[in-house]
Amino acid sequence: MAVIGILGHGTVGSGVVEVLLKNGSGIEKKTGTVLTVKKIFDRKSFPDLPYRHLFTKDAGEVLDDPEIDIVVETMGGLEPAFSYTKRALESGKFVVTSNKELVAEYGPLLQKIAHQHHVEYFFEASVGGGIPIIRPLKQCLAANNIYEITGILNGTTNFILTEMCKNGKDFESALFDAQARGYAERDPSADICGFDAQRKIAILSSIAFGQKVLYTDINTEGISGITKEDMLSAEELGYVIKLVAHAARTEDGIYAMVSPIMLPLGHPLADVEDVFNAVLVKGDAIGDVMFYGKGAGKYPTASAVIGDIIEAANYQPNSSGNAIMPDEVSATVLDSDQFAHKFFLRLKLKDAKGFEKEIATCMQDAKVHIFKNPLLAGEAGVFTGARKESELPLIRDTLASLDNTAAVLNVFKVSE
Amino acid sequence: MAVIGILGHGTVGSGVVEVLLKNGSGIEKKTGTVLTVKKIFDRKSFPDLPYRHLFTKDAGEVLDDPEIDIVVETMGGLEPAFSYTKRALESGKFVVTSNKELVAEYGPLLQKIAHQHHVEYFFEASVGGGIPIIRPLKQCLAANNIYEITGILNGTTNFILTEMCKNGKDFESALFDAQARGYAERDPSADICGFDAQRKIAILSSIAFGQKVLYTDINTEGISGITKEDMLSAEELGYVIKLVAHAARTEDGIYAMVSPIMLPLGHPLADVEDVFNAVLVKGDAIGDVMFYGKGAGKYPTASAVIGDIIEAANYQPNSSGNAIMPDEVSATVLDSDQFAHKFFLRLKLKDAKGFEKEIATCMQDAKVHIFKNPLLAGEAGVFTGARKESELPLIRDTLASLDNTAAVLNVFKVSE
Repeated sequence: MAVIGILGHGTVGSGVVEVLLKNGSGIEKKTGTVLTVKKIFDRKSFPDLPYRHLFTKDAGEVLDDPEIDIVVETMGGLEPAFSYTKRALESGKFVVTSNKELVAEYGPLLQKIAHQHHVEYFFEASVGGGIPIIRPLKQCLAANNIYEITGILNGTTNFILTEMCKNGKDFESALFDAQARGYAERDPSADICGFDAQRKIAILSSIAFGQKVLYTDINTEGISGITKEDMLSAEELGYVIKLVAHAARTEDGIYAMVSPIMLPLGHPLADVEDVFNAVLVKGDAIGDVMFYGKGAGKYPTASAVIGDIIEAANYQPNSSGNAIMPDEVSATVLDSDQFAHKFFLRLKLKDAKGFEKEIATCMQDAKVHIFKNPLLAGEAGVFTGARKESELPLIRDTLASLDNTAAVLNVFKVSE
Repeated sequence: MAVIGILGHGTVGSGVVEVLLKNGSGIEKKTGTVLTVKKIFDRKSFPDLPYRHLFTKDAGEVLDDPEIDIVVETMGGLEPAFSYTKRALESGKFVVTSNKELVAEYGPLLQKIAHQHHVEYFFEASVGGGIPIIRPLKQCLAANNIYEITGILNGTTNFILTEMCKNGKDFESALFDAQARGYAERDPSADICGFDAQRKIAILSSIAFGQKVLYTDINTEGISGITKEDMLSAEELGYVIKLVAHAARTEDGIYAMVSPIMLPLGHPLADVEDVFNAVLVKGDAIGDVMFYGKGAGKYPTASAVIGDIIEAANYQPNSSGNAIMPDEVSATVLDSDQFAHKFFLRLKLKDAKGFEKEIATCMQDAKVHIFKNPLLAGEAGVFTGARKESELPLIRDTLASLDNTAAVLNVFKVSE
């Protein structure tokens, strides 16, 4: 039997309690483990809940209760989550978290403290919501030299981009919709600026590559600059625009970024829609493997938290157990300027006649498309060959200065 | 440190040795475990391999060596794999297998013997090649009441169907191609008749539902009756034909089948091509989650075997560890006749004029499509409403007896 204390009865914390109440006997049957929630810390009151007697407004009642074996931290944010987690680990309690900010910032330190006290810090729910990804990376794929991870790691932005793509909405109204449905917060910047995906790819790449990748080193771009015309132009060319988080291990170091990318239809991530997430992992033995599911939400995230609780309840020292958050910072997170991509530039033309000829004089490897969609009248798209990001300003200027060009409307990286 | 003996140096067994030689130091760094192959049993000789000194033609040299902790069984088939596995477990050795026939037939018994001798029988590689699926089902999704599993579980048939669909090949030439590339065996019946997928869905559903599902109870249909015209007709209607393995837990019992199914484009399994496999799992907390990757092949399967070897090397009694193969046979595997599906019938017409009117007189919920593709000239497709499989002969007869019908060419189940 394991006795559980919960810190934070928000979306995820309440989901954990509800799933434990509903599926507790099934979990006991499958795993032989009885899981009991003894105390829930939250500043708010919940007088109408059937388990209202479990609540406390004093975190100490969870952290200092010697009967509690496992603390579930579903508060989010850095403080007081960090202090509470540290205190719980130092009292020899296991901690299970869904808090990606805290894991990305202090994961290695908290894991070290856990090990000093012969317990573990589990964080499967911090990436990909309910999708099993951290444990499979650690255990099932341990035979592999993993060299690339590419994912759609933020459900809110993927919902917004799907609404823009499928229903022709502009960014603002798709964001409004996401807020109305509770997918986006009132201040949506952590999602739409890419910071959430940045934390998650930092966690995944650290585990996969065995070197700490600082999230602050990851070049990150959000989705607020994407227009519905960008979506239409991508569609006409057989692409879809997604916010992609990517990390690769090369001979020179680690390269990581979060950025909107044009993915060709048929790419495994191109069909990932709405609030779904997916993570594509490349390893030398396994080839491509993909994990797909709901990347956020009350019950999917609770599912991942409870998976970790069961792991904690059955923990044995020296078992292959938990993924290791490496503490040593990677010597070289490479400057994204040094990586070559194909780029796509959407242009407003003064005159479509002669544009292809004019461009051939200055960019021989360019591929030009004059749009047919009447909503894109007078526009052209230009694909470059593989170019470094540092060359982009020059490319942009060159195209902007052509006689036929009225304006450069937008630029995207393109995936093969 | 763990000492390993390997039974069977075929595709998978040799892959295991090669990946251990190549990535052994990386595995040690990640997991702290040194893995050493001491002996390899095979009837053949391999005088040119750098590790030729490890071979023996006497299985006893593996099974009776007290230094060997972990036996890898990559022989396939029931005998002598069963006897060797039993003997290894009874000597207190862990056994890791990729042998789905053996797991589907004797998995529960072998697991019981393992537990009696305080070891484990690991079988992640028996389903989905390198795709992590059995351990995530057991560990990461333990919080869920899992009620449905749907998968493309056989890479050979998926390759054949992809060739037929993308390259317009007929079944025979696509099969020939699969054989030429080493994806299909000379006697390909285990794959193309659906028996391989049948074993795999039996294993997955037994673990997910906690009741032994006998593979012999699973209604199974293969792909040899599918023509390239069937593929074209599906394509014109926005579908793709895949060999799907499916198991669902209902209030009345478990329903399981392996069958060609028309999947609408946009279905998560519709884009799974070539030798790739995918498993879609539905749970009450997590919703839909999908695992995708190479379902067969030397290195992907070796990746899964080595994941299990690492698990065995770090095994601790009472850890949440291995998935449980239930020993009790499910009280009720439901008769597939009792389940309703939409069906699609492809017909040769005597006369397209008046066909829709004629069909409206006998099947009011039918949807009719007259094909436009010149290769399907004079053909029509009919979708039924949801009907039990037991009604199919009558539906077929009714359609065959219409004045406008020349022949019923083929019938498929249709997924929403």
